[in-house]
Amino acid sequence: MVVAGNPTALCSAYVTPLAWAEAQRPHLDELLIEQAHLEKKAAAAAVQFLFRLGDRTDAQKELSALAREELLHFERTLRVLASRGIVFRTLPPSPYAGQLKAVVAGTMPERLLDELWISACIEARSHERMGLLATALQPFAPEVAAFYADLCAAEARHAPLYAELAATLAPSAVVAARRQVIERREAEVLRQLPFAPRLHSGWPEVPGE
Amino acid sequence: MVVAGNPTALCSAYVTPLAWAEAQRPHLDELLIEQAHLEKKAAAAAVQFLFRLGDRTDAQKELSALAREELLHFERTLRVLASRGIVFRTLPPSPYAGQLKAVVAGTMPERLLDELWISACIEARSHERMGLLATALQPFAPEVAAFYADLCAAEARHAPLYAELAATLAPSAVVAARRQVIERREAEVLRQLPFAPRLHSGWPEVPGE
Repeated sequence: MVVAGNPTALCSAYVTPLAWAEAQRPHLDELLIEQAHLEKKAAAAAVQFLFRLGDRTDAQKELSALAREELLHFERTLRVLASRGIVFRTLPPSPYAGQLKAVVAGTMPERLLDELWISACIEARSHERMGLLATALQPFAPEVAAFYADLCAAEARHAPLYAELAATLAPSAVVAARRQVIERREAEVLRQLPFAPRLHSGWPEVPGE
Repeated sequence: MVVAGNPTALCSAYVTPLAWAEAQRPHLDELLIEQAHLEKKAAAAAVQFLFRLGDRTDAQKELSALAREELLHFERTLRVLASRGIVFRTLPPSPYAGQLKAVVAGTMPERLLDELWISACIEARSHERMGLLATALQPFAPEVAAFYADLCAAEARHAPLYAELAATLAPSAVVAARRQVIERREAEVLRQLPFAPRLHSGWPEVPGE
């Protein structure tokens, strides 16, 4: 399976401004705690797809390796928390993923196609925002900036894997139509959500900007 | 967290005879396909416990590492299948785990305690049977014997981790009582299940043996 391409193109209906990442500077502790939860959820999602795509022998190895990488990131995030004296704790999750999943089709195979596209979209958005955080935090917290830069590079491989799996589930016109629905929904969600110390929080656009 | 002890002691109410492993010799292809499914299910179980024990920061790292190891074993089993020209496919699962879970308590925290003990028990039984397979297959299929010997060593670390987590959830008398219920149930299940090309299949005892 060839996994390539620009991951940010998978969620291009909305472009996050650098100001979003700069506004996260006072909230690093909470953002890092959320990151640990996000990595654990990403691992669980990859394991679920391992079962849901259980008859796709070609995808089993890639999904298993992806789940292992997310678990490694989870453990690394726990170490970053420990090194900063932050206690890992539960957090109210961002409404982002739930609002995104509201557009998932009710029947198969479109349902699975949509869920894979949503995973591709979430990974692509994570990639974009981790890149922005790496830039915005560099002068302020270089070790956290380096952490996000490393994770950003990994996310760049995850989004296209999900997108390629989704693309095998239906004729290309169907796949393109579902992709458009999900990309537009994701942009709409990010424009409506308030700003918060969450990786997928909103950044309401100011009229005239 | 200290993880030690003899894992086979965690399921000592039934001792599998070497004859069970010798009887698996003609069924290696199916047994190996099942092994891939078992590793995937073991990884999913570890990921589920990561969430269910989400407030136990001390256990997060161990459970994440355990899930990663099960995923590595899954990928390794896929490579063994490929090297033998066996196509990975779905299989009817063994009734073992379902029958074992029939004794799980209906309320918390006993429910979680029971589920952790059952995982300890399954890992301990896997450890015992992989050891027997490594012995019984050595003259017949040395490369498969070596594969089971490697997996056996890893399972030896998994069972005590689950047992130690279970032991922290209730007073020691409660833990001991639930352990006894689960161990007895497991022995009963294995005595009643028929022999099959499954790692946790039965081996009905012959009267007088």
